[in-house]
Amino acid sequence: MTVDSRFYAPLGALTLESAAALAGAVLVGDGQLEISGVAAADTAGPGELAFLEGDHPGQVSLSHALQMIVVNEAASAHLADGVSRIVSRQPRHTHSVIARALLRPRFLGPAERSAISPSARVHPGAVICPGAVIGAGAAVGEGTIISPNAVIGPGVQVGRHGFIGAGASVNCALLGDFVTLLAGARIGETGFGVIPGPNGLEDAPHFGRVILQDHVTVGANTCIDRGVFADTIIGERTKIDNLCQIAHNVVLGRSVIVAAFGGISGSVRVGDGSMLGGRVGIADHVKVGEGVSLAGSSGLFRDVAAGETWGGTPAKPIREWMREVAWLSKQTRPKKKD
Amino acid sequence: MTVDSRFYAPLGALTLESAAALAGAVLVGDGQLEISGVAAADTAGPGELAFLEGDHPGQVSLSHALQMIVVNEAASAHLADGVSRIVSRQPRHTHSVIARALLRPRFLGPAERSAISPSARVHPGAVICPGAVIGAGAAVGEGTIISPNAVIGPGVQVGRHGFIGAGASVNCALLGDFVTLLAGARIGETGFGVIPGPNGLEDAPHFGRVILQDHVTVGANTCIDRGVFADTIIGERTKIDNLCQIAHNVVLGRSVIVAAFGGISGSVRVGDGSMLGGRVGIADHVKVGEGVSLAGSSGLFRDVAAGETWGGTPAKPIREWMREVAWLSKQTRPKKKD
Amino acid sequence: MTVDSRFYAPLGALTLESAAALAGAVLVGDGQLEISGVAAADTAGPGELAFLEGDHPGQVSLSHALQMIVVNEAASAHLADGVSRIVSRQPRHTHSVIARALLRPRFLGPAERSAISPSARVHPGAVICPGAVIGAGAAVGEGTIISPNAVIGPGVQVGRHGFIGAGASVNCALLGDFVTLLAGARIGETGFGVIPGPNGLEDAPHFGRVILQDHVTVGANTCIDRGVFADTIIGERTKIDNLCQIAHNVVLGRSVIVAAFGGISGSVRVGDGSMLGGRVGIADHVKVGEGVSLAGSSGLFRDVAAGETWGGTPAKPIREWMREVAWLSKQTRPKKKD
Repeated sequence: MTVDSRFYAPLGALTLESAAALAGAVLVGDGQLEISGVAAADTAGPGELAFLEGDHPGQVSLSHALQMIVVNEAASAHLADGVSRIVSRQPRHTHSVIARALLRPRFLGPAERSAISPSARVHPGAVICPGAVIGAGAAVGEGTIISPNAVIGPGVQVGRHGFIGAGASVNCALLGDFVTLLAGARIGETGFGVIPGPNGLEDAPHFGRVILQDHVTVGANTCIDRGVFADTIIGERTKIDNLCQIAHNVVLGRSVIVAAFGGISGSVRVGDGSMLGGRVGIADHVKVGEGVSLAGSSGLFRDVAAGETWGGTPAKPIREWMREVAWLSKQTRPKKKD
Repeated sequence: MTVDSRFYAPLGALTLESAAALAGAVLVGDGQLEISGVAAADTAGPGELAFLEGDHPGQVSLSHALQMIVVNEAASAHLADGVSRIVSRQPRHTHSVIARALLRPRFLGPAERSAISPSARVHPGAVICPGAVIGAGAAVGEGTIISPNAVIGPGVQVGRHGFIGAGASVNCALLGDFVTLLAGARIGETGFGVIPGPNGLEDAPHFGRVILQDHVTVGANTCIDRGVFADTIIGERTKIDNLCQIAHNVVLGRSVIVAAFGGISGSVRVGDGSMLGGRVGIADHVKVGEGVSLAGSSGLFRDVAAGETWGGTPAKPIREWMREVAWLSKQTRPKKKD
Repeated sequence: MTVDSRFYAPLGALTLESAAALAGAVLVGDGQLEISGVAAADTAGPGELAFLEGDHPGQVSLSHALQMIVVNEAASAHLADGVSRIVSRQPRHTHSVIARALLRPRFLGPAERSAISPSARVHPGAVICPGAVIGAGAAVGEGTIISPNAVIGPGVQVGRHGFIGAGASVNCALLGDFVTLLAGARIGETGFGVIPGPNGLEDAPHFGRVILQDHVTVGANTCIDRGVFADTIIGERTKIDNLCQIAHNVVLGRSVIVAAFGGISGSVRVGDGSMLGGRVGIADHVKVGEGVSLAGSSGLFRDVAAGETWGGTPAKPIREWMREVAWLSKQTRPKKKD
């Protein structure tokens, strides 16, 4: 996907040659290619610079439209000739240096003087409470309430008949109609990604968005991070309780229920109508089918097919888990004396 | 209980007949009864409209004062003749439609122009910091500090010598004296309840309050939801750590200790002086006696009698849990070679 | 250590005699000693009043510079003659009464009239967004962004090129350069400590600070409590995800990674380069060596040596845990019929 310029200001295009020079890395291929954006290696289109971690590009299915990529020397040897590349010891870090030279998140820009930016479009039928801050280019639809001290970042689009709770904040996000965010919800923060750099650990920059479809509800103090290059997407009528964590690039289907303390790691997919009990954790990249139930407190590390019910840590089909719990209890029960 | 008009504005009474028409449902009984409020089926008084889920009213002990209720056709057949009813396929949803036509939470009302409402009563000996917002009809007692960017909703009563931390928010709540809310605490948000409606999942509207008795302390970013029809109550000198979740209709006794990440589901009761270790979870409707200890990380699904100590997930008496842990470890330990 | 007067205003020194009178407790020793501060018993220097809980002072290694202490009668009998003392039935409570008479956290002081205190030092190259509040004596360095509705408490020092997210709050803390706090992070709140007093449970007052070294990142809605008498310290380039809880007096080394819902109890030490998976809990006073890995969902109750990988609850070496999980699964698997 193309980076959304409502949230990320382009700082001027770079050629692949100038990008390599900027990062102090080696160019192999067409240095005159112009970099217009950044993307993941499996989705990059023309003009978008991707990267690969590790020595074996075969682990990722590269986009057919891939023109240019940052790789290390070992991985470079395996790449098709048509792909131009920047060769670096730390490809992820080199890519982040170039990405930061291309794009700047608008919320890092100069401060507005007024709480409601003159360039924000607020429907006259919306209610903006005292202390609310609305950034440049943001929009708030008819009948939506922005509660006291809530913060709507630059470019954020909030649909009609929504409710943004006290002190909640939204960045880099598109909200449909009838979306409810309870107090203190944090939408669109940078996700958690740590890149080894020449001076130690650095934060991975994020260039994606959060999409909250119609009738989504997000609980108090719940966090939904924006995607790295793609979007974090919450489907229609999905309901999320308080104090949940939804990481970058997660896609929740429609009418999913996530109870309190739900923790959904990066790039997880959850199918329509699934129900996650309290304090369920799901490891990154796991796929959960439609209509799945996960018992409270379960920790899921594997994919689950549609319609199943799992529990425990590590989670397994609920009958297996309950059988284990019962068996262990029976084995260790003191025998009664006759 | 009667809905508290300090938090919910009456929109004008409805007759049972007009309510049925509004909801597109069938009236059986006295259509001229006037609906003055909403309540749960086991506590509804005269003039209060309740609802029943499911086909068997026998599972709930109906209030003796019950006059009118929303039920489905199967359950209607079992009801006493004296009770008037609205018959609907989705009674919970029908009830919510009528409830929303009767009452509007005041925090959804038109925005104030000033951060401190002219109708708020703030004691001259209270300290109101910059950015704090205080709603219509709210009260703040002597010696209480409202930190920067905290939000006190319409009608909220804060007693004397309290402390409301930075960015904390309070709605639909009554706070005693010497109550401390650390930064980012969320008091009185809508609890998590999902109603199947004709168009899919909807949020259950909440008409209760939160009561924090004297000397209660609530940690940073902790959430305490208000009740559905009744109140969520935190007893005197109960101390709650950061990042806890206390759901709707919970009643914690006096001097209860809840360590970080404590998760207490809807309608749970915890007796005086009980101690919950870090990351304890309690399933909904569970009853915990006085002076109970729950070990850190335990997940409780059953009632616990006074004075007991439990641990594990699912939680059991601590000795049983420790015996299981030790036995399992012993069984699987590799045998040393001689 | 000495209490930092940027965060705690001295209310005037007390003699040991007047302090005993104030607390209604018995003085033994030199009543003319002047109390200049408060400290823990193992670190108290001249002029600092400490306390001991319990009857046996031998459990704590008392500071060699200790001059004065609050103890109960049993413990008093074991103390060296040279130490003056206040004897009380509830030493921790008595100490807190005296401490509160000596020092007042500056954030409890009279409210500023302006959102940015005239005595705050804000670099002209810093960006202060609408709604941000900056307390008396605070400092914000060059290139740092203070997002909308964030709160920087009195005396707080924020270094250069930092980022403080929307609605985040910071009290009693020193932040280095390139420190990132995402939205809703809570730095420097009072830690969770409950003291039995004559009228029931009371909150333990805290007189320490939070130190965030250069390049630390703190996730959205994460809480880091300040120390009781010492500091909570987060080492250089340590990265903490959303919704984590770091308790008082914790010391995390450099380049530590803490994933979402990490819960680190009071006085825990974690060595450089350790990695904590999602929802890891560590019990108070546990020591974790350098380069340790803790699997997601593990609950650690014991010290772990450098370089080890542990998992499970209670946590153990990962191979043991995985062996137990596999063995239990095998024992309870239904046998297939031939």
